[in-house]
Amino acid sequence: MDRRPIGIFDSGFGGLTVARALIDLCPGEHVVYVGDTARYPYGPRPAAEVATFSRDITRHLVEREGVKLVVIACNTATAVALDELVELAVPFGVPVVGVIEPGLRAAAKASSSGRVGVIGTVGTIASGAYPAALGRLGLDVELACLACPGFVEFVERGETVTDQVHVLAERLLAPMRQQQVDTLLLGCTHYPFLARTISDVMGRDVVLVSSADETAFDVRMVLGSSDLAGDPGRGGTARFLSSGDLDSFTRLGRKLLGPELESAEPLVLAPPAR
Amino acid sequence: MDRRPIGIFDSGFGGLTVARALIDLCPGEHVVYVGDTARYPYGPRPAAEVATFSRDITRHLVEREGVKLVVIACNTATAVALDELVELAVPFGVPVVGVIEPGLRAAAKASSSGRVGVIGTVGTIASGAYPAALGRLGLDVELACLACPGFVEFVERGETVTDQVHVLAERLLAPMRQQQVDTLLLGCTHYPFLARTISDVMGRDVVLVSSADETAFDVRMVLGSSDLAGDPGRGGTARFLSSGDLDSFTRLGRKLLGPELESAEPLVLAPPAR
Repeated sequence: MDRRPIGIFDSGFGGLTVARALIDLCPGEHVVYVGDTARYPYGPRPAAEVATFSRDITRHLVEREGVKLVVIACNTATAVALDELVELAVPFGVPVVGVIEPGLRAAAKASSSGRVGVIGTVGTIASGAYPAALGRLGLDVELACLACPGFVEFVERGETVTDQVHVLAERLLAPMRQQQVDTLLLGCTHYPFLARTISDVMGRDVVLVSSADETAFDVRMVLGSSDLAGDPGRGGTARFLSSGDLDSFTRLGRKLLGPELESAEPLVLAPPAR
Repeated sequence: MDRRPIGIFDSGFGGLTVARALIDLCPGEHVVYVGDTARYPYGPRPAAEVATFSRDITRHLVEREGVKLVVIACNTATAVALDELVELAVPFGVPVVGVIEPGLRAAAKASSSGRVGVIGTVGTIASGAYPAALGRLGLDVELACLACPGFVEFVERGETVTDQVHVLAERLLAPMRQQQVDTLLLGCTHYPFLARTISDVMGRDVVLVSSADETAFDVRMVLGSSDLAGDPGRGGTARFLSSGDLDSFTRLGRKLLGPELESAEPLVLAPPAR
């Protein structure tokens, strides 16, 4: 029985999809969520910068919050920094779980035709992380990858079903509609909030897959395999930290996550190690 | 980079289905397989006895073979001893992965109707481990559970497609055929070797799901999250230990697993701790 919290981080609100799945699957676990809203979006930034931000937050979660496991609930950060964050956290006995492989496995299973699309930020798609993970996992599917710049910004403003986001989705997803995929992996944790719009554009025949549920299952597995699980009989709590404006984080975050997000605390990172 | 081997154990040959999946998914990992053929089958034995055997083997793998992770490639042992084995191994920094939850997740995903059948040994089914895992995972499926005593013995004799095993399958699976399941989880690592016979009896419309692939994915995830993965660029080796007759283990094992099983070594367990 290990009552330490699980740490989850994202550039902003996207990781709340993973937090939601984890709270539902592991109701006995305490959760600390970090949304780096002051520095979002991560998608268009250089890989080295995203890696630095991710290291700072992981160090904060491990050293200051005393978490027992870190979830990188951001595809861009997983794509550029997973190996590095594992190396950083493991000396503390803290495993690190990303969102790319779980999502890819779920999509491969959901596809009948073997033609799977992946949409993500420019950073995620440009990293080649999805084709690389496909090769490592040996999954028998063909991938069509497409960057969707702009989607994250709409979610971070709380606009998930407006006409503007629909117009953007029509334009961005046009090349994907020609790819004849039967499954579309939402390769960014923000995108599930746009699922209705994306589904309208792609058509009802295309199955949308998010990484959130599968990532939560993986977290549960890692906790269980290393005797890190909390007490399933006692309710877990959730705390939320933001590097940006706390009122707007709380207001929009509650709308996206649900009532567990009652308030947010400021994220104050230690100065970077030299 | 961690070049220590992964330990896998089963009552006999069943766990070779998991070993096969793991060797294919993680070609850079060394593997030590233990088949406790001198004491198989585990299925009809009292739970306490299976737990004792499982503890002895896990201790051997951790203390004598120096493994970095233990896979309980036996549903009966997972059902009765998973929590205990995790507690035993974790002080050594060794995670333990079982086969029940991975298989159940795969079956739930494969089912369209939500009616899933599970077949297993008397020990596994009687333990209630599957309905319990279903509750913990919060999966939205109905389970029909059925014990199939006798299947394991056929596999351990190398009889996988004879008339006799077909007759037994007809008789044992009759109640399952009335359950209108669209997916049948092979809740015993021996059963994939009987897949053709089971599929003939259940009908082509019923999807058969084994735990092997999903368990291998989970092992890969746990290794990756804790910086325990081996060197993907260097080929892993496989060693096989048996508590029973080595010649017959090698002969039948090679037929079931493939050419990696060239020879077997004797399993000599330390006397139980007092």
